[in-house]
Amino acid sequence: MNKESMSRRDALKLGALGTAGLAMLSASNAMAAAPTEKDVKFDEEYDVIVIGTGFAGLAAAAKAAERGYKVLILEKMGRIGGNSVINGGGMAIPNSSWQKKYGIEDSGEQFIKDCLKAGLGINHVELLETIVKRSQDALDFSIKCGAKWQDVKPAWFGGHSAPRTLVTDNMSGSGVIKPMHEFVEKLPGCKIMTRTKMDDFVMSNDGLSVLGVTARINYRFDVKLLSDDVENKTGEKKVYRAKKGVILASGGFSMDKIFRKIQDPRLVEDMDATNHDGATAGALLKAFQIGALPVHIDWIQQGPWASPDERGFGVAPLLTQQGLFKFGVAVDVRNGKRFMNEMADRKTRADAEYVILREAPKAYPVAIGTYNTFDTQIYPQIEKGLQGGVMKKFDTLDALAANYKIPLDALKETIKKYNEDAKNGVEDQFKKQTLKDVKGKEAIEMKGPFYAIRLVPKPHHTMGGLHINTKAQVISANTGKPIPGLFAAGEVTGGTHGASRLGTVAVTDCLTFGMIAGETI
Amino acid sequence: MNKESMSRRDALKLGALGTAGLAMLSASNAMAAAPTEKDVKFDEEYDVIVIGTGFAGLAAAAKAAERGYKVLILEKMGRIGGNSVINGGGMAIPNSSWQKKYGIEDSGEQFIKDCLKAGLGINHVELLETIVKRSQDALDFSIKCGAKWQDVKPAWFGGHSAPRTLVTDNMSGSGVIKPMHEFVEKLPGCKIMTRTKMDDFVMSNDGLSVLGVTARINYRFDVKLLSDDVENKTGEKKVYRAKKGVILASGGFSMDKIFRKIQDPRLVEDMDATNHDGATAGALLKAFQIGALPVHIDWIQQGPWASPDERGFGVAPLLTQQGLFKFGVAVDVRNGKRFMNEMADRKTRADAEYVILREAPKAYPVAIGTYNTFDTQIYPQIEKGLQGGVMKKFDTLDALAANYKIPLDALKETIKKYNEDAKNGVEDQFKKQTLKDVKGKEAIEMKGPFYAIRLVPKPHHTMGGLHINTKAQVISANTGKPIPGLFAAGEVTGGTHGASRLGTVAVTDCLTFGMIAGETI
Repeated sequence: MNKESMSRRDALKLGALGTAGLAMLSASNAMAAAPTEKDVKFDEEYDVIVIGTGFAGLAAAAKAAERGYKVLILEKMGRIGGNSVINGGGMAIPNSSWQKKYGIEDSGEQFIKDCLKAGLGINHVELLETIVKRSQDALDFSIKCGAKWQDVKPAWFGGHSAPRTLVTDNMSGSGVIKPMHEFVEKLPGCKIMTRTKMDDFVMSNDGLSVLGVTARINYRFDVKLLSDDVENKTGEKKVYRAKKGVILASGGFSMDKIFRKIQDPRLVEDMDATNHDGATAGALLKAFQIGALPVHIDWIQQGPWASPDERGFGVAPLLTQQGLFKFGVAVDVRNGKRFMNEMADRKTRADAEYVILREAPKAYPVAIGTYNTFDTQIYPQIEKGLQGGVMKKFDTLDALAANYKIPLDALKETIKKYNEDAKNGVEDQFKKQTLKDVKGKEAIEMKGPFYAIRLVPKPHHTMGGLHINTKAQVISANTGKPIPGLFAAGEVTGGTHGASRLGTVAVTDCLTFGMIAGETI
Repeated sequence: MNKESMSRRDALKLGALGTAGLAMLSASNAMAAAPTEKDVKFDEEYDVIVIGTGFAGLAAAAKAAERGYKVLILEKMGRIGGNSVINGGGMAIPNSSWQKKYGIEDSGEQFIKDCLKAGLGINHVELLETIVKRSQDALDFSIKCGAKWQDVKPAWFGGHSAPRTLVTDNMSGSGVIKPMHEFVEKLPGCKIMTRTKMDDFVMSNDGLSVLGVTARINYRFDVKLLSDDVENKTGEKKVYRAKKGVILASGGFSMDKIFRKIQDPRLVEDMDATNHDGATAGALLKAFQIGALPVHIDWIQQGPWASPDERGFGVAPLLTQQGLFKFGVAVDVRNGKRFMNEMADRKTRADAEYVILREAPKAYPVAIGTYNTFDTQIYPQIEKGLQGGVMKKFDTLDALAANYKIPLDALKETIKKYNEDAKNGVEDQFKKQTLKDVKGKEAIEMKGPFYAIRLVPKPHHTMGGLHINTKAQVISANTGKPIPGLFAAGEVTGGTHGASRLGTVAVTDCLTFGMIAGETI
């Protein structure tokens, strides 16, 4: 980070929310109103232009190219795959062939109920119904493209009423992105350009239809900038025509330091997220300017299972979710007491952590457990966590308490009470259901050793985005009808998840609506 | 309602959310991209144009006109005052001269804490700090304009840590709107035009600054249309220049049947709201299209104290909040059981009512109480409620149960248990704090008569809107800086209230930022 950007960043911390500070930013890309046909000269012409190379973008491109269309895929970053390629590779499919194969009963109705419960009832049910109808097709399409999924009983993720989740062979979204990328590369007429940033839409002269995009090639995303979208001046301008339309699959905005803070001021500028650096709101905000409607924009899912001791997603989420949280505790370092149900939903836990962090910004709570709490399949991660320093191991509670400056007696009292309740089958103060599995045993094994991870909420998924219909068409505020030539899929859209996304429904949403956009266009 | 609009409305219910149905709407005002200077010929020229005549609009206009500016005020409806004129007339002022006069201790910090608590921590604190600094000035300015406030001890509203609320002499927002309207009318160079709808902004040729608005005079708002903003074709086009800028004070969108449902699909098209018919999102959505940023758009406050048996706000809110809810019960008519703490926050109660109404759309819960539960100051409303048929009176529980088809034995059991708990000072199942006041007594007096009101949540206030800074300037997505020539105040903005507005802070927000917009422009 250079001095100039440092001082700007510091100045921003002093200023009012994204306002006083932002007044200092150079407005390199300042331009209101998307250009129209008469304002531009098209450099190249395609049938379809796809913005983004995550699950939604590649599925859309693959489907459109398979139909014989000439497709241009723009990716602003230097690598393919956005957040998708660093995703955990789980895809929930309700009432799937996979479930039938393994004798699991499920129904689309139950899936919708589960999503509505997590989403606080504000989900767009017609999008969930579309997932019920088409997610199996999306899975099959991913397989056709070369994705390999573990042929085991579907996994059971939190909030789902049945085991519904398939996981890729390599337990990563790259297990879909890599083959799909290769599939697309092989199709005639399909072209991917990395380091190419879409700047704006090109509209018809009457302003009603999307005809293409303006973009910059040789663009270098700059992580040091407070707002890459506003400040970055790199690259050379190009104008691309899209005869059939543009499919926006530009992802969420968990790393947009300005826009995410407008929605939730607790997300201060220097806060890390689980996302890749390029997850900003630029393309989303341009869509609003041609009449696309915002939906559920301020619901930002934050991972209460992340750690301040590593960047990005890291290993802490696995080690806490499939480890320390189940039988272990999370304590407030200031008083050694528990402050949440370690297995509650993401929002409840993130909010509980924020209560502490607002009072004492560096007093990260600590998750504590013993070896018995880890799921067998994540044993390989334990060493990784310890080596990276994200997780620490202590022979005694005394050493653990000393390291984190937790009042020792209070901590011991907390764990004693917790273990007694669990052992006796008495409901603990937060009614944690997983403790039923250790009835009659020690939840936290007092002989040690003890494992600990410091916790911080990290923005993980932005539920909101553009309002689309079941055909992945973007609806206009001005007409109430689809904007001709504009489609969107994946995290840049909103509605499917409502207020809170259930785990592993993101991949489902992205692949399903990406495929549909490619079919519809 | 004519046949045509009926059939369209019915079609919409069948179609997907605002999509299939909307495709049928005529796109009379379809136009993307705001016109620029070169596209228009200005019919008239002013210094300042204000959109809307509620608290924010009139305060802005009065302040700007007082500074000597020539001000045009546009109001799309036939009457002045929007929702403000039907508002309850309460204004919370933290640490006010009024509090000092009556010996009440308060602080700005405590006010901000209260707002953050209700707002789930996502409020824009710099806007709350501005209210702390300037709301006394806003009150004083309203008095200068002729508003009269009751010279009594400030009232104590839910969620506030101290009595902070002044109420107008006539206990209505009209106590501010009427004198402020007269004040503005008397100022030279101030012109109000009703039935004049702003259609769009006029931008500078570089697209960066707001220069004025396009509008239609002789516009007739049509309540029968599903979307007046999209469908209404009435009026003659005019173009007005605003040399200093436009102040958007167009209010919230609780009556926008399309946009509110996109944010919360539980708000079906035929659902009533507490708002006036003109509370739609048209101007807000136009602002997004010139680069204004959305904030907290999906937080729609719903009044759990409203009734399906009257239109709009009505008398039910008073009769339940200051009556039946305090010592009475709300029961599910299907089983005669309570289903919520009748004194919980608005969102909790509205959500609880929705759980019932989603299962059985017409099974409106019923609030039941006896005479002892009404506050003395609302005694005059009791007769009003009974006469209008919103509240019913029964000599016996048997008659009440029969009327609402509530299982009698279950209802009696519910009330018996409730009364026993209250009498014995045992916490009831929902931990309702007000029952402490009837310890040793009957909460519901079994001798009767019994009063009952059917309940439904009604959209009441849209917390979200445009992102503004502390000077009421609207921030641009494209530059991160204020959009030159664009200001906004009141319910069309977001951030002050976060996820949930405390009672009587709306008037504060509107008058304060309206005044500031008029000062800054």
